[in-house]
Amino acid sequence: MLEQTTSVEKSNDVERVLADFVNVRNFSEKLCEPLKPEDYNLQAIAETSPAKWHLAHTSWFFETFILKKFQSNYSCFDPQYEYLFNSYYNSIGEQYPRPNRGLLSKPDVEEIYRYRQFVTEKIQQLLNQLADVNSDSLIEVISLIRLGINHEQQHQELLLTDIKYNLFQNPIFPAYRDSSEPVVHSLPEDKSLPPVEWIAFDEQLVSIGDNQTDSPISQSGFVYDNETPKHKFYRQSFLVANRLTTNGEYLKFIEQGGYSDPQYWLSDGWDAVRNQKWQAPLYWYQQDGNWYIYTLNGVQSLQLDQPVTHVSYYEADAFARWSGARLLTEQEWESIATGKSLAKGFGNFVEDDVLHPVVAKESDKLKQMFGDVWEWTSSAYSAYPGFKPAAGAVGEYNGKFMCNQYVLRGGSCVTSRSHIRKTYRNFFYPDARWQFSGIRLARDS
Amino acid sequence: MLEQTTSVEKSNDVERVLADFVNVRNFSEKLCEPLKPEDYNLQAIAETSPAKWHLAHTSWFFETFILKKFQSNYSCFDPQYEYLFNSYYNSIGEQYPRPNRGLLSKPDVEEIYRYRQFVTEKIQQLLNQLADVNSDSLIEVISLIRLGINHEQQHQELLLTDIKYNLFQNPIFPAYRDSSEPVVHSLPEDKSLPPVEWIAFDEQLVSIGDNQTDSPISQSGFVYDNETPKHKFYRQSFLVANRLTTNGEYLKFIEQGGYSDPQYWLSDGWDAVRNQKWQAPLYWYQQDGNWYIYTLNGVQSLQLDQPVTHVSYYEADAFARWSGARLLTEQEWESIATGKSLAKGFGNFVEDDVLHPVVAKESDKLKQMFGDVWEWTSSAYSAYPGFKPAAGAVGEYNGKFMCNQYVLRGGSCVTSRSHIRKTYRNFFYPDARWQFSGIRLARDS
Amino acid sequence: MLEQTTSVEKSNDVERVLADFVNVRNFSEKLCEPLKPEDYNLQAIAETSPAKWHLAHTSWFFETFILKKFQSNYSCFDPQYEYLFNSYYNSIGEQYPRPNRGLLSKPDVEEIYRYRQFVTEKIQQLLNQLADVNSDSLIEVISLIRLGINHEQQHQELLLTDIKYNLFQNPIFPAYRDSSEPVVHSLPEDKSLPPVEWIAFDEQLVSIGDNQTDSPISQSGFVYDNETPKHKFYRQSFLVANRLTTNGEYLKFIEQGGYSDPQYWLSDGWDAVRNQKWQAPLYWYQQDGNWYIYTLNGVQSLQLDQPVTHVSYYEADAFARWSGARLLTEQEWESIATGKSLAKGFGNFVEDDVLHPVVAKESDKLKQMFGDVWEWTSSAYSAYPGFKPAAGAVGEYNGKFMCNQYVLRGGSCVTSRSHIRKTYRNFFYPDARWQFSGIRLARDS
Amino acid sequence: MLEQTTSVEKSNDVERVLADFVNVRNFSEKLCEPLKPEDYNLQAIAETSPAKWHLAHTSWFFETFILKKFQSNYSCFDPQYEYLFNSYYNSIGEQYPRPNRGLLSKPDVEEIYRYRQFVTEKIQQLLNQLADVNSDSLIEVISLIRLGINHEQQHQELLLTDIKYNLFQNPIFPAYRDSSEPVVHSLPEDKSLPPVEWIAFDEQLVSIGDNQTDSPISQSGFVYDNETPKHKFYRQSFLVANRLTTNGEYLKFIEQGGYSDPQYWLSDGWDAVRNQKWQAPLYWYQQDGNWYIYTLNGVQSLQLDQPVTHVSYYEADAFARWSGARLLTEQEWESIATGKSLAKGFGNFVEDDVLHPVVAKESDKLKQMFGDVWEWTSSAYSAYPGFKPAAGAVGEYNGKFMCNQYVLRGGSCVTSRSHIRKTYRNFFYPDARWQFSGIRLARDS
Ligand SMILES: [Fe+3]
Ligand SMILES: [Fe+3]
Ligand SMILES: [Fe+3]
Ligand SMILES: [Fe+3]
Repeated sequence: MLEQTTSVEKSNDVERVLADFVNVRNFSEKLCEPLKPEDYNLQAIAETSPAKWHLAHTSWFFETFILKKFQSNYSCFDPQYEYLFNSYYNSIGEQYPRPNRGLLSKPDVEEIYRYRQFVTEKIQQLLNQLADVNSDSLIEVISLIRLGINHEQQHQELLLTDIKYNLFQNPIFPAYRDSSEPVVHSLPEDKSLPPVEWIAFDEQLVSIGDNQTDSPISQSGFVYDNETPKHKFYRQSFLVANRLTTNGEYLKFIEQGGYSDPQYWLSDGWDAVRNQKWQAPLYWYQQDGNWYIYTLNGVQSLQLDQPVTHVSYYEADAFARWSGARLLTEQEWESIATGKSLAKGFGNFVEDDVLHPVVAKESDKLKQMFGDVWEWTSSAYSAYPGFKPAAGAVGEYNGKFMCNQYVLRGGSCVTSRSHIRKTYRNFFYPDARWQFSGIRLARDS
Repeated sequence: MLEQTTSVEKSNDVERVLADFVNVRNFSEKLCEPLKPEDYNLQAIAETSPAKWHLAHTSWFFETFILKKFQSNYSCFDPQYEYLFNSYYNSIGEQYPRPNRGLLSKPDVEEIYRYRQFVTEKIQQLLNQLADVNSDSLIEVISLIRLGINHEQQHQELLLTDIKYNLFQNPIFPAYRDSSEPVVHSLPEDKSLPPVEWIAFDEQLVSIGDNQTDSPISQSGFVYDNETPKHKFYRQSFLVANRLTTNGEYLKFIEQGGYSDPQYWLSDGWDAVRNQKWQAPLYWYQQDGNWYIYTLNGVQSLQLDQPVTHVSYYEADAFARWSGARLLTEQEWESIATGKSLAKGFGNFVEDDVLHPVVAKESDKLKQMFGDVWEWTSSAYSAYPGFKPAAGAVGEYNGKFMCNQYVLRGGSCVTSRSHIRKTYRNFFYPDARWQFSGIRLARDS
Repeated sequence: MLEQTTSVEKSNDVERVLADFVNVRNFSEKLCEPLKPEDYNLQAIAETSPAKWHLAHTSWFFETFILKKFQSNYSCFDPQYEYLFNSYYNSIGEQYPRPNRGLLSKPDVEEIYRYRQFVTEKIQQLLNQLADVNSDSLIEVISLIRLGINHEQQHQELLLTDIKYNLFQNPIFPAYRDSSEPVVHSLPEDKSLPPVEWIAFDEQLVSIGDNQTDSPISQSGFVYDNETPKHKFYRQSFLVANRLTTNGEYLKFIEQGGYSDPQYWLSDGWDAVRNQKWQAPLYWYQQDGNWYIYTLNGVQSLQLDQPVTHVSYYEADAFARWSGARLLTEQEWESIATGKSLAKGFGNFVEDDVLHPVVAKESDKLKQMFGDVWEWTSSAYSAYPGFKPAAGAVGEYNGKFMCNQYVLRGGSCVTSRSHIRKTYRNFFYPDARWQFSGIRLARDS
Repeated sequence: MLEQTTSVEKSNDVERVLADFVNVRNFSEKLCEPLKPEDYNLQAIAETSPAKWHLAHTSWFFETFILKKFQSNYSCFDPQYEYLFNSYYNSIGEQYPRPNRGLLSKPDVEEIYRYRQFVTEKIQQLLNQLADVNSDSLIEVISLIRLGINHEQQHQELLLTDIKYNLFQNPIFPAYRDSSEPVVHSLPEDKSLPPVEWIAFDEQLVSIGDNQTDSPISQSGFVYDNETPKHKFYRQSFLVANRLTTNGEYLKFIEQGGYSDPQYWLSDGWDAVRNQKWQAPLYWYQQDGNWYIYTLNGVQSLQLDQPVTHVSYYEADAFARWSGARLLTEQEWESIATGKSLAKGFGNFVEDDVLHPVVAKESDKLKQMFGDVWEWTSSAYSAYPGFKPAAGAVGEYNGKFMCNQYVLRGGSCVTSRSHIRKTYRNFFYPDARWQFSGIRLARDS
């Protein structure tokens, strides 16, 4: 697999991975600062886990896949956690039923923080130990820590989208965090966002995906197994919108009867509209003729120029059909995205602490490809040609979900900037709305 | 309605009701002392409300039915609570959906304690005011406070049965309270409980129920509307067991295939057995051939001489049929119970702080009629002849549940001794098992 | 049990029971004459069985409880029928799932008619044989045939109510039978029904139920086990409406918002209203401002003076509360009904071939106690004091349903006149509406 | 669109389409010959429509899309049919609820046959009329008749798979048709099927799909809109099994615990296994240690060399993973299939009247690509690049189902040979098992 690097580099690598590891562990806890113990356990639906569960499960991941395997005579923090905080790894064993995670008042919040600290310290110790003795397992452990870091970043995003969903069930609409002025991020009064421009791309044979050729030791070299292997894809010509769809554009779809005319909808989408009584994106509500949205910063007036978000695939697809357009395929998206890793200041990510998509900037040509909202693609999530899942239990990470879900690209305002890349494939069921998911239009040319 | 009493008595009455009021308010909070904030929100099923909700709802009751009506210029603690903490009073307005009470992380625990204190003080002030000016409303308000006291006592019982149920969903079986030695309350090793003796009662015209003739000002004079009016009932002769059915007796029913033979079961009961996969009372489980039960004091070995509890009506009825016996009607039960109010030391009630039924004492003839466990009767809960619900919103308290439920009598180990009496009618659906409900056998003579 | 009667009488008895048996068997088939093979299998909900299933199951009853037990070397028509056409007799064995009865296209209609003929002939042969040899089993067999006759009469009523329900699911509202003029049975144009008069009854000790003292050989001597034993009941004084509630009276309840105001409804009833979206009795619908009802004779305009029917217990109870009245208890009903067996021409029964309730006649004082519609009582269906279920499998007939259901009295326009009596207890779940169930009001006096 | 052809050709075209039309109409009725009226209405689940409904709906299709539009002054057979027999065409109007189709005993079977005859004759008249006057609409109508013919062929297949499923619900397992000897189609006793051979295909740019360039007038020129447009696809190299997976091979998967080990299953597949309690393909059952399968010709012993069928996508995928292989993509499948239209005698289709898959023949190299069983591909059903749905209501035919379904290729033993082609895309939900769906393995090379 990986080439053996010299010890000098390794030492740097170890330090880098340790720093990234500690940062990620701290960041999860920072995200929970606005929460009170009562908030940590909320779970409105099976899909949204309690914050406490995310904190525990990400620790369980490091404990299960690293400490139990590589730390000799490892004595686990609490043997019952193997069952309680396993998400879906069948090769590890049975799992506590997902819909009931909100019923685990014990272990309590303090206990979980002790668990986190315990695991964080043990991982640091293990890595230093292995580095000291130049162990054969060092690279494998580093590689798994890197996986665990990325895993925890994913759960940080879920922690935010889940707490948003769960707090929203409360009719008093408590905000995740107090913010004296809700972040509006609209345009100055004398400006307005220009209409979409269409950018043309030609038919060509493109390269999609990536191989795990870089050392997984660095964050920038990391890819998930579902992004592999790199392969050729014959792309037809097409046009793409230069920016995301806005609330204002989506509002027209609503006002012109989009939610009551089956012609725009996939058959399953139309069923969802009727069964779930959708009439607008999630978190929108109307009062006295005005539209409001619920955000992590509390309720705010609907800003027409902000990107629309919290729409399902069905809504994205219906909006596109109503617009005489369509969504991009994931290959089209990837072939036009640029930049493998993202520079600081590029895009609107969780590090920017806005926690809501913002209005497109004027400067760029192809705007908002990264950050703000995940872009639904028309591609069902499936294996790339030649795909092999990772070996062992971590092979359950991605491959077994390759059915009935759709790929989203580009990351969102609650994704870590260091987590995303142009080959990154996120995936959700087509009726999911609690992620920061949005719309970019495309057309056949 | 009520006769005007002299002012001297009234002054005593006011002091008595204030003392009872404050005691009850304090006792609710005492019951929550073992809980951490995370525990206050647990709700596993729609039937079991979170502890925090009980604390708030009992305050809402005083606020809604007394303060808003009798306190001039009353400014309520938080206008949103009217919706959040209304249980089922349709005449008050819409209710927050019952199954989602566990999703209310806000208002948080501290806020609810502030709410409680606010209401407690306001009620005290109001009552003192009315007494000072010898208001016309005084008796009505006292009567409603008395209702509120009894209402809060009912919720104290539910608070305990609900938290027991909700904590039990956690596979680590956390106890409600730590108790160095689990309370076993069994017989000395050289003793064993004698078999049931049958006590005979003759056919006769008996009097059932009570009228609200006593002043409602005293706790001992209080009855719910569903216990009224007093009326004649023609009782046939019958035999009754001198004590409650024990775990040991019930275990024989299990071991002899009671849960797998439809002949013992009502048709709806048999459906419940199969759909809910019942194989023993709630909170029983078997490990390595031994039976254990989960109690508010944690897990303990099954004690054969303790009364069986946490059985549904269906199980009580099936056990009785298997025994060649039947359950009592509520009229039979009431006609043989003695003592309208219960002396201290009589029975096993919440004040005794055992929180679990205990073995029958040898001394009494007809044992365990009060306390320990609620006794399922074969009487469907319905209106007594001539029943009139109380006027106004509090008329929704009892009457509208007179359908599909069964009457239980006698109170349990988590009932307040001052709350129970021989005419008291409790009622639950026949598949309910999370109350301390048990069995007393009877036979036709 | 039964006294041995002389052989002369027995011979008459045998002839009488044979005549009744053949009449009942023929009448089931006569009721199916309007059906085509496609109609025989309809089953919209688990509660409503296909006509073909009723034809087969009533034969299965005779075969299972008589032929298999008393006919030596009996070779059954088809051994698979034991499973297919058992309704709920667990002591006989497993049952084909009730909700799927409509999926049994085989055995086809012709085959089921052959099965009926086979069973009918075998029963006749058996009875003649036993009579010829003066067998010891004769009386037992006659008694079971009598049970089977009554069982088949019950299923004849269900056959009609079920086919009505099932045909109504079809949006073209096909009638059960063609009838050139829909039977309207209203008053002449210049007449109108006088308002309800209230008849008073005094407090007294009454006798309820019956013993099986008469020979079960005659139809008039037959009672079900649930009507036994005869016992004393202390009845309070009350007032009763002299006739059934009419469509016109019920329409006022609808028009004055009865279905949208929770104050009139039991808690479970209000849930039913909202979950099942009830806005009127079953089979009522409004078109262009006019009300229509679907009957076995097809659609007709709502007749205001006809008794209201196809209401649930919840609706009957809510209507009564809205009227400032209540329903009768079953004991009240029984104590004022007169006539143990009913003379021809008395009441509106299936033999009268109207198949719909008709307007009250002027002559009688206490009108419509028998026939037209079953009257919901406020009595939960339960065992009489001293009740013992019949021995053996037929003991599953009644007793195991004594839970969660309500008693109805008096028979309906699709009941056989020879089947009903004043002690007769019918029972259905409180949300059932597909029977001809109606309302008679009462009041405390 | 289409070039105007000369009148001589048109006359031939008209005759050809009329002949095909009449043949298809007759064939639907021929398939129903074994049914009795009781069988015509069976519907066990929403997915399986009654035979009578298929007969009516296919007529409704011709009536709605042709007669109502092109026949001047057309008076429809029954205006209520528009609602009753619309399947999912929202632009036509509301539909009678799909799960309740089995409740339509009226219109009865005879009436539906009259409806069929009426529509058949009207279509013939219309086409002859238009041809006589050389109408401008002629080609459009012919094109729609061709669509209707193909539509009816699809429903013929469903009619058979639905009746199979529906009859199978009956515990007496009635056969669709009597067949003195069940068709076994196994190998001679001294022969056995050789193991799978793997055929290699190279990486290359291939052409997928077809355009509607041929005149749609001939059956062989017909394609559905979802097969268009023809486009380039970059195919990687791969290996493919030379024949279908057999019952014997699948049985090994079962015997080696395939249904109890989550590692082989997609996450959603594993949920399906547990929720639906799958332990073998649909229609398999074990008795006294022997395996049997239910076929349209009745029950037969499991034949090891026959292709496995009635497996879901989840099972096909899990079997492939267990085998160390995978399924083909639909592009891989199409790129190796040969022959646009199929010669008589090629493959096992409905015309061959076996109605069950048969053992692979020795002669061919790449065997069983067409007929026998539909082959699940790993391709989620989605739009081809540049796809445009057909205009008008018939545009609802295919496009709106492009979500959550998987593509199957090649036709089955109940498909019409004249209906299938190499570009043909069938699609079902991944848990569907009632179609003749099977498995062909592939591998990365
Ligand atoms: Fe995870
Ligand atoms: Fe309450
Ligand atoms: Fe029956
Ligand atoms: Fe169709």
